[in-house]
Amino acid sequence: MKAVVTGLLERLSATLSPGGLLVGQDAAEKAVSSWSRMGTPLAVARPTSSADVASILRLCGEAGVSVSPWGGKTGLVHGGQADNAVAISLERMTAIEEIDAIGGTVTVQAGCVLQTVCEAVEAKGLSLPIDLGARGSATVGGIIATNAGGNRVIRYGMARDSVLGLEVVLADGTILSSMNHLIKNNAGYDLKQLFIGSEGTLGVITRAVLRLRPKPASQDTAFVGCDSFDQLPRLLRHMEAGLGGSLSAFEVMWSEFVELVTTPPALGRSPLTERYPYSILIEAQGASQDRDSERFEAVLAEALEAGLMSDAVIAKSQAQRNAMWELRDDISQTARNWPIFTFDVSLRITEMESYVAEVRAALRATWGDAATLTVFGHLGDGNLHLIAGVGSRTRETKHAVEAIIYGGIRDRHGSISAEHGIGLEKRGYLSWSRAPEEILLMRRIKALLDPHGLLNPGKVIAAEEN
Amino acid sequence: MKAVVTGLLERLSATLSPGGLLVGQDAAEKAVSSWSRMGTPLAVARPTSSADVASILRLCGEAGVSVSPWGGKTGLVHGGQADNAVAISLERMTAIEEIDAIGGTVTVQAGCVLQTVCEAVEAKGLSLPIDLGARGSATVGGIIATNAGGNRVIRYGMARDSVLGLEVVLADGTILSSMNHLIKNNAGYDLKQLFIGSEGTLGVITRAVLRLRPKPASQDTAFVGCDSFDQLPRLLRHMEAGLGGSLSAFEVMWSEFVELVTTPPALGRSPLTERYPYSILIEAQGASQDRDSERFEAVLAEALEAGLMSDAVIAKSQAQRNAMWELRDDISQTARNWPIFTFDVSLRITEMESYVAEVRAALRATWGDAATLTVFGHLGDGNLHLIAGVGSRTRETKHAVEAIIYGGIRDRHGSISAEHGIGLEKRGYLSWSRAPEEILLMRRIKALLDPHGLLNPGKVIAAEEN
Repeated sequence: MKAVVTGLLERLSATLSPGGLLVGQDAAEKAVSSWSRMGTPLAVARPTSSADVASILRLCGEAGVSVSPWGGKTGLVHGGQADNAVAISLERMTAIEEIDAIGGTVTVQAGCVLQTVCEAVEAKGLSLPIDLGARGSATVGGIIATNAGGNRVIRYGMARDSVLGLEVVLADGTILSSMNHLIKNNAGYDLKQLFIGSEGTLGVITRAVLRLRPKPASQDTAFVGCDSFDQLPRLLRHMEAGLGGSLSAFEVMWSEFVELVTTPPALGRSPLTERYPYSILIEAQGASQDRDSERFEAVLAEALEAGLMSDAVIAKSQAQRNAMWELRDDISQTARNWPIFTFDVSLRITEMESYVAEVRAALRATWGDAATLTVFGHLGDGNLHLIAGVGSRTRETKHAVEAIIYGGIRDRHGSISAEHGIGLEKRGYLSWSRAPEEILLMRRIKALLDPHGLLNPGKVIAAEEN
Repeated sequence: MKAVVTGLLERLSATLSPGGLLVGQDAAEKAVSSWSRMGTPLAVARPTSSADVASILRLCGEAGVSVSPWGGKTGLVHGGQADNAVAISLERMTAIEEIDAIGGTVTVQAGCVLQTVCEAVEAKGLSLPIDLGARGSATVGGIIATNAGGNRVIRYGMARDSVLGLEVVLADGTILSSMNHLIKNNAGYDLKQLFIGSEGTLGVITRAVLRLRPKPASQDTAFVGCDSFDQLPRLLRHMEAGLGGSLSAFEVMWSEFVELVTTPPALGRSPLTERYPYSILIEAQGASQDRDSERFEAVLAEALEAGLMSDAVIAKSQAQRNAMWELRDDISQTARNWPIFTFDVSLRITEMESYVAEVRAALRATWGDAATLTVFGHLGDGNLHLIAGVGSRTRETKHAVEAIIYGGIRDRHGSISAEHGIGLEKRGYLSWSRAPEEILLMRRIKALLDPHGLLNPGKVIAAEEN
């Protein structure tokens, strides 16, 4: 190990409290993740305060050593890969500092796990409406750094929309504290927006103030079948208008997805007697179970009558509701088509049908019967997840599949990343979704905030092109 | 006039289409506004395209002449003051380019007036949920540049929350087109956030994609009386939870405000028989008038029973609803206490009662019976408007009153500008709401995007302190 690194690790160890610096085998064990390539960090620093994070950044900056912030290590684009860097794990910064039930805010340290925050605020009769599969591991800091999406975006927006205040440590060790608690605050530039979704490349998020909502008192869930794609957006708009603000999920599954999650070895069974090209899980969260259920049924019945769908089953118990969500969440069944590649894109709803058809045809044209395509997504947000299998997972195959998936997105001015971010995984395709002027401005902002390129280098924007 | 300016005006005139450049008396007439000091611009440029705006910025940049973008000229902080600058009026860029009823978006040029956009999308069964007093004059560009608030923020957020895509011309004439139509898009930094709320100091907004919502099919409105402040947040949370996502306004009026708007020469009369320290206009927008009205009444009845309010009247007709809103909107009555100063601040709800009491006591301590204080606001957003009268409007008096109003905000970590922005009016107090590290970063961003300080100079951040 180079002397400069040895010296840095000594200084870090002396600065942080006991257990604050992991090296060697301890660091390697910390880097294990089933989801994300975390790389081989020089060490894992475990701060307990924003001041600790500032010290780490100052010491690393002096030594010219990079840092990579770590949250729950469940990202899907390798945004935490820490080769030749000091990883900063926020796992000892998990305090829930304040829950203001009157103001409707929670103040937390960035290492706190999403589910922990959700449960704490629910105990006070409130709700943090960010919900995603990784809820038990993803941290507040990671969720904000990646502007996470999830299942409730149609109603409550992305993670960005729940962030009122943010504390960030800049590359030079400055603690930038914008811990605003207010929904309305137009006193100067809203600096926190810069850091939300920047994947640790502009600063390290250490604390946040999140906006809370009333805890829903009712829940209504239906599983719906549609015969044609053009029913889907009309059904979406009908439910949105008819439910008066309470629609909280509109999850579409293409038939291949439903086939996988309702046939053995999957344990799920379709609630519908027939098979449909499109199945939709629709959910509303409201205020009064009796009143809301009556409305939910009435609005669904209108949709059936208007020909916006072909069949529907309404969950009559929590068990039935859970069974419907388990179908939607049983994504691991898509691995039965292994080897596979998974994608997360967004595009305008009016373009989705042609896009999926085009991708399917292109995969078949090259790989014939070996090609599989499983599609599901958050239709109301324009967000599709595509899982493509073509019988091999070589680098060349991957590029060929990406060219098809992202090429169709580029042609339609869509996004190569709806909710997963760019990380290392997609940076080569950033220019397929963003204009040269945009990428140039991203580089200038990166250079302004991280002039020596030490913050999570190579993520989002490729360093070698700098 | 200096030769460099004469030359610039000639080049601008040659570049823009007929009527594209107003000078002299024509420019002076264009600068008339009853709300905002627009200054005396060197000329008023009236582009018809983003390319025109780019040309204007390039030519002005070459000549070293500043620009100030103009929207509806109804801002309240003098953010468009164009002394010694070329004003860029977007009034010839008013096209509604596309309404996508399926995707739920409208694409507009920045000079389009808010009300025009709202009416166009309503004709297609959709709603742009930004609503404020200046709806008939404020432009899309101005609303985005100031991150406008208004009456529906509690449900739909600030202007920022309705912006999906943005086109901005940078200081060097680069057209930065981020015309995203998607709710979910995490492909790189979300650059548009930088420009929203930056008051024309970082770029000139030329086009936008805005998110639409379903047009509400029902409306329920009540006028409520409360005896004590601590009922207000509890009532707010009760209504929010009970109405299941449909609460769209919660407007609180202190008794002095109600007194002014319900006594001659005001035409309004209170719907309540008694006087209360606090009156609240509560509104819900939903999907089905019968069903929603029944729920609205039931939730209000629960509130009365639980002691969260003392009396309530529900509007039984559109005329009654209009009468309630006319009380809330009859702000000009506060001028009966002329001379007055008006303020727009935000602070945590739990701090509001002590804050208003402290301000009232401080005004009385200095100005005795000459002091008046009228308060109303969007309680759910933490936003209060205070109108203070102390018998004079000299510069010294103004500073003394500001010290009281903003001093109490500083002590409570509130915001000196909830929704009006900073402009010229409040820039001297920016440091009362923002930390030195924040202001330094604002300056660095300003310097990055506008290195020669030509974009709306002196607004938000005072140039002389640079």
